Amino acid sequence: MNINPDWITGFVDGEGCFHVGVNPHNEMSVGFQVLPEFTVVQHKRDIQLLYGLKEYFKCGVVRSNHGDRMAYRVRGIEHLLQIIIPFFVNHPLKSKKRIAFEKFKTILMMISRKEHLKASGVEEIKSIAKQINIIQ
Amino acid sequence: MNINPDWITGFVDGEGCFHVGVNPHNEMSVGFQVLPEFTVVQHKRDIQLLYGLKEYFKCGVVRSNHGDRMAYRVRGIEHLLQIIIPFFVNHPLKSKKRIAFEKFKTILMMISRKEHLKASGVEEIKSIAKQINIIQ
Repeated sequence: MNINPDWITGFVDGEGCFHVGVNPHNEMSVGFQVLPEFTVVQHKRDIQLLYGLKEYFKCGVVRSNHGDRMAYRVRGIEHLLQIIIPFFVNHPLKSKKRIAFEKFKTILMMISRKEHLKASGVEEIKSIAKQINIIQ
Repeated sequence: MNINPDWITGFVDGEGCFHVGVNPHNEMSVGFQVLPEFTVVQHKRDIQLLYGLKEYFKCGVVRSNHGDRMAYRVRGIEHLLQIIIPFFVNHPLKSKKRIAFEKFKTILMMISRKEHLKASGVEEIKSIAKQINIIQ
């Protein structure tokens, strides 16, 4: 596939999603696990586009989503920090999804500083994550 | 807006739609009116993207769609034939929407040869238009 950065930005402006889950988790000392993910969902007829993204970014997985839909998904913190975030810093989204991305990036930076392991950090992340969901 | 062809192709792969309506119409001698249109629908918060498309293509209109959604829409036969179709010939879509575009293009070529004004042409256009709807 002849996939290129500007095409990816346009496609993600349409179909991409930045999400941060903050889920109750007994084994975490703060009681919550922070799960950021970047996803692109498509009907299964266009699964080759999702594999194209996986090949381009050299990270993430392609999995079934709901019904006839498939998703390209990146959850690894290092992959998000070292590949996905720099990509969208260098090739900015043009839709309001850019604001969601900026908040997503803020949370990833907090995670890289281990702030998600402190109660105050989790509270701040919860608040930012809520704002992300409102935008998208 | 710094909009470029590859971004447009990616965005339309996600959000674009090629549609051909074949509607009963008393004033047409063949009894039907053929209405092709290219649309991109977005939440109103991203209306600037739709105006960006309008500015880039120098044709079409931005109108409200359903509820909070807005649409960029090109219906003019000459604009479709001279601007939209050449654009996607030169910057091919990567999703299965490309197949819908090819069928859309076939219908526009038939219209340019005035085949939509003959009963046999309308029947063929109806059949192709149905296939377009199945893909998208």
